[in-house]
Amino acid sequence: MDQTARIALDVMGGDSAPACNLDGALLAVERGVPAERILLVGDEGVIRDGLKDRGGDPGFAVLHADEVIGMDEKPAVALRAKPGSSIGVATGAVKSGLAGAHVSMGNTGAVVGAATVGLKTLEGVRRPGIAVTVRLTGKPVTILDMGANVVPKPEHLVQYGHMGAVLMRDVVKTEKCRVALLNIGEESTKGTDLLREAHAALTESELDFIGNIESNQIFGDSAEVVVTDGYTGNVVLKLMEGFSGFLLTMVGREMAAHGADWAHEVLGNVRKKVDYSEYGGALLLGVRGVVVIGHGRSDAHAVSNAIELAGRALDADVNGKIVQGLADRAPSA
Amino acid sequence: MDQTARIALDVMGGDSAPACNLDGALLAVERGVPAERILLVGDEGVIRDGLKDRGGDPGFAVLHADEVIGMDEKPAVALRAKPGSSIGVATGAVKSGLAGAHVSMGNTGAVVGAATVGLKTLEGVRRPGIAVTVRLTGKPVTILDMGANVVPKPEHLVQYGHMGAVLMRDVVKTEKCRVALLNIGEESTKGTDLLREAHAALTESELDFIGNIESNQIFGDSAEVVVTDGYTGNVVLKLMEGFSGFLLTMVGREMAAHGADWAHEVLGNVRKKVDYSEYGGALLLGVRGVVVIGHGRSDAHAVSNAIELAGRALDADVNGKIVQGLADRAPSA
Repeated sequence: MDQTARIALDVMGGDSAPACNLDGALLAVERGVPAERILLVGDEGVIRDGLKDRGGDPGFAVLHADEVIGMDEKPAVALRAKPGSSIGVATGAVKSGLAGAHVSMGNTGAVVGAATVGLKTLEGVRRPGIAVTVRLTGKPVTILDMGANVVPKPEHLVQYGHMGAVLMRDVVKTEKCRVALLNIGEESTKGTDLLREAHAALTESELDFIGNIESNQIFGDSAEVVVTDGYTGNVVLKLMEGFSGFLLTMVGREMAAHGADWAHEVLGNVRKKVDYSEYGGALLLGVRGVVVIGHGRSDAHAVSNAIELAGRALDADVNGKIVQGLADRAPSA
Repeated sequence: MDQTARIALDVMGGDSAPACNLDGALLAVERGVPAERILLVGDEGVIRDGLKDRGGDPGFAVLHADEVIGMDEKPAVALRAKPGSSIGVATGAVKSGLAGAHVSMGNTGAVVGAATVGLKTLEGVRRPGIAVTVRLTGKPVTILDMGANVVPKPEHLVQYGHMGAVLMRDVVKTEKCRVALLNIGEESTKGTDLLREAHAALTESELDFIGNIESNQIFGDSAEVVVTDGYTGNVVLKLMEGFSGFLLTMVGREMAAHGADWAHEVLGNVRKKVDYSEYGGALLLGVRGVVVIGHGRSDAHAVSNAIELAGRALDADVNGKIVQGLADRAPSA
């Protein structure tokens, strides 16, 4: 197997690591990902023992990493203090061509920091962005940036539109790739200077730009890609997570009062639809390598989804297509 | 009755105007608001006929307004083109002392625009802000600004914290008035320059400032007042509205599959808890007068809530307390 087609899995990252990751890797193999495509990164003893406990090693590659960055450590500090962390080693594996993708349920800031510093940005890309695909209405929508770039420039937002459209077309395989700008009104004059300038630049771009949408329209069939700055994107993602958890708990309590034994099933079905880990996690787009950032509380199912997403992104050559698309956009550059 | 204790109700504003407003005014009287405290503003013929159809006039004051600003009209344009609109006339009534409060379910931008231009800002207040109180967890939380000030300065955010705390202490009557800054992490170094500077200024203020909170923490028992810029606040409010509607519809569909005849009741109970009009709408804080902005789709119940909120804000002298508090903060000014 071509090593750059391999997926480095940070075995030590996540609230239930290493169990969730080992279970997730095995589940991914069950679902059809070749074991030799997965490079397990972490404490080799822990990995070997963990696989033994789970019935043996189906043929994973293993890369030892001495250290672990905790979920609550400060990313920049931890990355400097622990050069041998599983996040650092997995990022290094992508950098040196031992793998093409890094999948981690660990400290998001550390994964993004390691990738931003360790892997260079793709040719033509100004700033990486975190893309999260949700399937709230059955129909996938990608929102980016989710926090990599808190104070972007208008051109960054245009590039996010471009990268998001490539993701939707080539990895998620949607028919349309309509791009919208998150704003507080439809008119092009709404919002901040950044939003007005981004609106103008997106209008001039070759993207299928449909204009501004308001946050409640994310749930309608309005756009496949919603572009926003990393501050707002982070607020939106965490609000959706927190609010859905809160609302569904409230609904569950009301239903419990009626003693419905199927309440659990109803809530589970809805929870699945709003859980973005169902789609495999977030992608850091714009760096030389595929980087998938899962939720800390991921279970084996979510880890397997994340591995499969990384595989699809590699197979679709999403980064090659991003670079090609940017080059086509700017022939004079 | 002191005219400045009166509440001017824009009878013509809202998706179901004038019916929802006339019904709402009558409901407010039923609930104990003296009829002579309510000044109905709108087409006098429509108002008189509407009251006749509803069993008569319990003693409302009426102020005629020739024109109506539609829900979808551009606020600035409409306000200039229709000086005799119910929104314009009601604002004028507050300005001239014919009333102390303006309550409208109409075009939000026009209500805010009329108030910002027509009523001056309170002494010491730099910029008005829209405060929305939600009672998601049973416990009220006020979020501001919800869209009046899209690009605020750090000092505006400090003033929003102050105004929100007065609202909670004196109108909502909460025990604590903890103020938090909406951000994407707890550390004071997180976010944009605005947020870092606001964090420093809030820390130095006399407010009970608990630091940054993330958007998912709005639903926890963390703060009574959440301060943010008008862009983010607007995104948050509309996301909560859109997402709760979307989620509850999805839950309803799942429940319908089980044929539960109480599904409607469960969803209704949850909807009520997340609906901010249950609390009476949004308050535009910082102008010389009490301005309550209800939702366009308000029913009589929501209109009555909005009237009662305006009454409580007047009775508590919320504006006097805001001015006094700001003066106490800056003795050298």
